[in-house]
Amino acid sequence: MQRAFGYAARDPSGALSPFSFTRRPNGDRDITMKILYCGICHTDLDVIKNKHGISSYPIVPGHEIVGVVTQTGRKVNKFKVGDKAGVGCLIGSCRECDNCHAGLENYCPKPVYTYTIFESDGDTKRHGGYSDILVVEEHFAVRIPDAISLTGCAPLLCAGITVYSPIRHFGLDRPGKRIGVVGLGGLGHLAVKFGKAFGAGVTVISSSERKRQEAIEELKADSFIASHDMNQMQAAIGTMDGIIDTVAAAHPLKPLLDLLRTDGKLIMLGAPDLEKPAQVPLFPLFGRKSLVGSMCGGIKETQEMMDFAAEHNITSNVEVIAMDYVNEAMDRLARGDVRYRFVIDIANTLTNL
Amino acid sequence: MQRAFGYAARDPSGALSPFSFTRRPNGDRDITMKILYCGICHTDLDVIKNKHGISSYPIVPGHEIVGVVTQTGRKVNKFKVGDKAGVGCLIGSCRECDNCHAGLENYCPKPVYTYTIFESDGDTKRHGGYSDILVVEEHFAVRIPDAISLTGCAPLLCAGITVYSPIRHFGLDRPGKRIGVVGLGGLGHLAVKFGKAFGAGVTVISSSERKRQEAIEELKADSFIASHDMNQMQAAIGTMDGIIDTVAAAHPLKPLLDLLRTDGKLIMLGAPDLEKPAQVPLFPLFGRKSLVGSMCGGIKETQEMMDFAAEHNITSNVEVIAMDYVNEAMDRLARGDVRYRFVIDIANTLTNL
Repeated sequence: MQRAFGYAARDPSGALSPFSFTRRPNGDRDITMKILYCGICHTDLDVIKNKHGISSYPIVPGHEIVGVVTQTGRKVNKFKVGDKAGVGCLIGSCRECDNCHAGLENYCPKPVYTYTIFESDGDTKRHGGYSDILVVEEHFAVRIPDAISLTGCAPLLCAGITVYSPIRHFGLDRPGKRIGVVGLGGLGHLAVKFGKAFGAGVTVISSSERKRQEAIEELKADSFIASHDMNQMQAAIGTMDGIIDTVAAAHPLKPLLDLLRTDGKLIMLGAPDLEKPAQVPLFPLFGRKSLVGSMCGGIKETQEMMDFAAEHNITSNVEVIAMDYVNEAMDRLARGDVRYRFVIDIANTLTNL
Repeated sequence: MQRAFGYAARDPSGALSPFSFTRRPNGDRDITMKILYCGICHTDLDVIKNKHGISSYPIVPGHEIVGVVTQTGRKVNKFKVGDKAGVGCLIGSCRECDNCHAGLENYCPKPVYTYTIFESDGDTKRHGGYSDILVVEEHFAVRIPDAISLTGCAPLLCAGITVYSPIRHFGLDRPGKRIGVVGLGGLGHLAVKFGKAFGAGVTVISSSERKRQEAIEELKADSFIASHDMNQMQAAIGTMDGIIDTVAAAHPLKPLLDLLRTDGKLIMLGAPDLEKPAQVPLFPLFGRKSLVGSMCGGIKETQEMMDFAAEHNITSNVEVIAMDYVNEAMDRLARGDVRYRFVIDIANTLTNL
């Protein structure tokens, strides 16, 4: 076994504190990475706070992981020691089902997520990227191009692929398409950047008029709609080919469905409430509009996204923090006080006690 | 003006009785048809009973109309006197929008339905096919192939195209695809026939175990699931590419979403309650599954459907009735007591008093 060290939550307070554990030995198809940076995804916050009532402690969160390869198994082809590697939400799948064969490991019925959320998830507790090292089968790691910022690309491994995948899959990745982006956080700001890089028209839809300036001027969105302004909403009815909805909290869906054209898709990305169904007016769907969910992306597509990002100079706007700032960062994330992603500087600030 | 005669509902009792009215003169691009047969769609029943609270009386229903052309305007190209013609839900649209240009007149924002349901629908009251003649712009009439039964093809003009269009649009029209059909009525039984004709595997999902025999033996469905049987439902989880849901009454959607594979579509066709939103659990959508509505079809696709039906010998199972039986037929339709569509023999039984 390999000795590892990180920060874990021990109970639903979600407070993260130093934690020693072990990782498996490096197998034939594995790489071991020294973790350099790890992004803080909103899922990490939900899980450590037991939002869905299924968390099993201790939990070392983190699935936006960038590191440098320190060890390679004898059957590893994709990496050599010293290479940069990235790991997102998924470190395993059955590799045998139709989805796995199609490169959709993210929709495999037996996914192995990067860190264990609940015990029934598997027999071995897995820990995430708020830690010093990671062992992972090479298939589930992507190459990090030299050209890309290591801090700015860490959030691409979850937030980035989560918006990139539906933009590509639903054909929103071309000039002439109009994309709405609901919510301007970690996912939303990347949806604007990818949408623009593909040449689509991008409209940010936000409940906060204050976001207009940053949407238009900083992120280069084409337009902005304050969702509470009925005139602005009315003017955009029937204009959008797809809406990337990043808001997890319950919110009215009819006004968004109304913004779609025929064959438009309302693409839900925010982690939904497991208990409560959404109230969906069916009538607006009858313009052959779809309500659909999407969840991260497959490994091949994640590599494609990373290469596309490097080529188009797309990274997440980040605030790099020290490991011991993580609890304060979580408090700020809960308040939406971050533009747009915290990234922990693991290598320089995680000190093994 | 042309004198016309039919059966109209006068109030929310829905009772239909003889009614004299006028049709417009035959315009340059119009054909006038002597109506031979008209199917009874469930929408007709909803409208005459004012289910949605928007009906404006008197109403002559009927939008599954087959007739013979008796007059043609000087700019008519598609028909000559004596030809058989069919008219469905739509007799007009703006002809200028993107949807109209794409042959999706059914999704035009300014549709002209075959009969007026509510007054704001337009300035001229329009009456449907429970009547002796119809005047219609030729664009909105389809040719009826000689090979097809006139009684059996009338319901294709609404029920038929309503199931055919999503089967085609969502790529369920090929061997290897598995289609679920919820509800075995006018729409459902045609979905089975079209699905089979395209070579797809078809599973009927019904709340009534009694429908198993007719689904398998009479309609040649590949399999049957009684929706209340948890074992049967469980065995089919994740197996379907699309589900044609013809049930208008509120019903749980999660069990149906669970039957879908990744990228599967739950396609709602039943007229939804305008007031009440559906309860949709979002979590099952996160397998990139879609909830989508679909509404009849465009004119070009309706012609394609009619030609395909003639070629593959697909017609609706019908019970042909006399005009004066229509009120009893409506009562039976309300009880689900018809296999699978009533068709009124207009030409032989509608007598102008």
